Amino acid sequence: MKPIGAIPADFSHLWPLAIAGRFVDHWIEQAGDTPLFVYDMTVIAARVARFRAAFPGIDLHYAVKANPYPALLQAMAGLVDGFDLASAGELALARTAMDPHRMSFAGPGKRDDELAAAIAAGVTINLESSAEADRALAQGQRLGITPRLAIRVNPEFELRGSGMRMGGRASPFGVEPGEVPALARRIAAAGAAWRGLHIFAGSQALDAAAIIDSHAATLTLAARLAGDAGMTPPLINLGGGFGIPYFSGEEPIAVEGIGVALRERLAGLPPELADARFAIELGRWLVGESGVYLTRVIERKESRGEVFLICDGGLNHQLAATGNLGTVVRRNYPVAVATATVGAPTETVSVAGPLCTPLDRLADQVELPVAGPGDVIAVFMAGAYGLSASPTAFLGHPLPRELLVGG
Amino acid sequence: MKPIGAIPADFSHLWPLAIAGRFVDHWIEQAGDTPLFVYDMTVIAARVARFRAAFPGIDLHYAVKANPYPALLQAMAGLVDGFDLASAGELALARTAMDPHRMSFAGPGKRDDELAAAIAAGVTINLESSAEADRALAQGQRLGITPRLAIRVNPEFELRGSGMRMGGRASPFGVEPGEVPALARRIAAAGAAWRGLHIFAGSQALDAAAIIDSHAATLTLAARLAGDAGMTPPLINLGGGFGIPYFSGEEPIAVEGIGVALRERLAGLPPELADARFAIELGRWLVGESGVYLTRVIERKESRGEVFLICDGGLNHQLAATGNLGTVVRRNYPVAVATATVGAPTETVSVAGPLCTPLDRLADQVELPVAGPGDVIAVFMAGAYGLSASPTAFLGHPLPRELLVGG
Repeated sequence: MKPIGAIPADFSHLWPLAIAGRFVDHWIEQAGDTPLFVYDMTVIAARVARFRAAFPGIDLHYAVKANPYPALLQAMAGLVDGFDLASAGELALARTAMDPHRMSFAGPGKRDDELAAAIAAGVTINLESSAEADRALAQGQRLGITPRLAIRVNPEFELRGSGMRMGGRASPFGVEPGEVPALARRIAAAGAAWRGLHIFAGSQALDAAAIIDSHAATLTLAARLAGDAGMTPPLINLGGGFGIPYFSGEEPIAVEGIGVALRERLAGLPPELADARFAIELGRWLVGESGVYLTRVIERKESRGEVFLICDGGLNHQLAATGNLGTVVRRNYPVAVATATVGAPTETVSVAGPLCTPLDRLADQVELPVAGPGDVIAVFMAGAYGLSASPTAFLGHPLPRELLVGG
Repeated sequence: MKPIGAIPADFSHLWPLAIAGRFVDHWIEQAGDTPLFVYDMTVIAARVARFRAAFPGIDLHYAVKANPYPALLQAMAGLVDGFDLASAGELALARTAMDPHRMSFAGPGKRDDELAAAIAAGVTINLESSAEADRALAQGQRLGITPRLAIRVNPEFELRGSGMRMGGRASPFGVEPGEVPALARRIAAAGAAWRGLHIFAGSQALDAAAIIDSHAATLTLAARLAGDAGMTPPLINLGGGFGIPYFSGEEPIAVEGIGVALRERLAGLPPELADARFAIELGRWLVGESGVYLTRVIERKESRGEVFLICDGGLNHQLAATGNLGTVVRRNYPVAVATATVGAPTETVSVAGPLCTPLDRLADQVELPVAGPGDVIAVFMAGAYGLSASPTAFLGHPLPRELLVGG
């Protein structure tokens, strides 16, 4: 038997599993069928409220790439201060929900047509390089629109213990700190609207102390860059990095302590940053735990003393849960038999998807209530980097459904 | 500097890169833009011819999951004896190209509606379990159609050195050998058309001796099962498993030796198999090397002494090349600057895609001709498990184009 991650507290007290007060069969009927992603907006609203309490005065941005489901974007637009985009495709989706002037756009390989679309819409461009600045200025001139430009910095430090390190190394992301002051002066002189700095040191961190250190280093760096440029950044995007506990032994991050430390730092800001606003950009932490992927058991199969529950969805919808997206050692996400009752007898099973490849394993040798055809398996932590980060066409199965509930 | 895999011989002698006799700009213009997958049908036809020469009298099946691009399926239908399917979605695509009576359908979690669609079309079902047999028989009865049923066996042995082991262990795939004879008798007694056995021990093997051993073990197992059942299998699908060399130091597999060994075995078949036909099912080996993924450089960026070429496509189109599909240690696929001339000066670069994640790396610290914006990067070995196995919606970039050329 192998361990699973902890089921998020938002769901773990209800059994058989209920989401937003209704058993899963209700939502499956409403959506039409499994496989189904259900996102509980009450969970997201609770995260937003927790952020607002811990970070008064700090803007909250939502990273659209975490989950671009249109109904979710509509609901998020009323809760956060801005959207952060990673492509013109995300802009096209997001602008139906929010004024593009509240959005920014980061990404290392922006095409000219993407820069033009973003500038035309009034989106702030987080410049990743001096060459990109030239292309953005050229597009602004061509369109006769003043581009709103910020600079993404490749910091000298990294976020310790983060799942994805974005700083402290050679990188496709951001401008080297030494080049930032001259670039800021150059784009201002060229007539762009100067929007500030974006400094992102890593993501998926569960260590509050590491984020506190990263914020301190970010503020020191921002003050130095602002001083060297002789220009106050109107907004400093501090990045995000708040992780969620996917695996056994991981603990939720204590964001309140991060808020206290940040408030103390901001109370003693140097004059270079006295007029700056600050934003934190979150994706995974806001929406990851809200999502539950529901897939129906097609067959219970015994093979050489092991039991497999074979389901109607798998790696094609939940690539990360199978350990195939940025993971070295495969570990089990939290999973459950959504249709089981409390106290049902259990057995050790593996949960497989329908794809004809041994990679398609949603859970490996976990202890679950005895289940069979017709039962529904829930894979938690499915609200971020789930459906949109999965190879949906692989082996030609139907697309899953999505449903936003609660809130 | 890190090594790259060898560029397939079909392409390595032409520089700047030409595919089917034309430089890549011609194909990009014809398709409309990058990113673009080009599949060269002359390469595929050469693989088919090599198979036919090495395996006279053996049926050749194409595993549609390797590449379901419609134009490619149309062209393949005239070259191979059958298609192997992994879903009803693949059936819907494939039936526009081939009579479904020449197809078979394997997969561990077939839904009832998939079984019904396949039986109605006359596709042979490779049964993965006794319970699936019951469901297939029930669907046949409901439709008033005799189902064509074969049994997929979970062999006791595995294919040594294969990238994906499919035998020798507890598995969601196939029926345990001890249960096969009774199941074969039962489905025949129930009135199904008995189609034979499917025995698949692994895939992506580069060791011909391992495949020869696997064929010998498969024939021994098939003879035992046929004898115990008292029924000759009309067809024995020997699986596939022929690999292609993705990485530095790997060598192409010598299929001719496998053909000689198989012919010798088939000359001395026991009476239980005397009337059987044999098929080999190939996907990757037939089409993998035919495909080239072309992505244009948006920016050449220097960061702390390292050079990055940032392109308009990456992990969203070529997940496997970034090391995120079933790989433990990331190694470089063969890549090239398609627009460079012979003898151009080189430098050490990393090739990144446009996604805002450090996972989006098509090549890590490789020696390539100096390139910049407008140049085209070619990623080889892109014909199998490329586009259809990638998370195309991730970060909202446009779908790539596809083009079948040559042949």
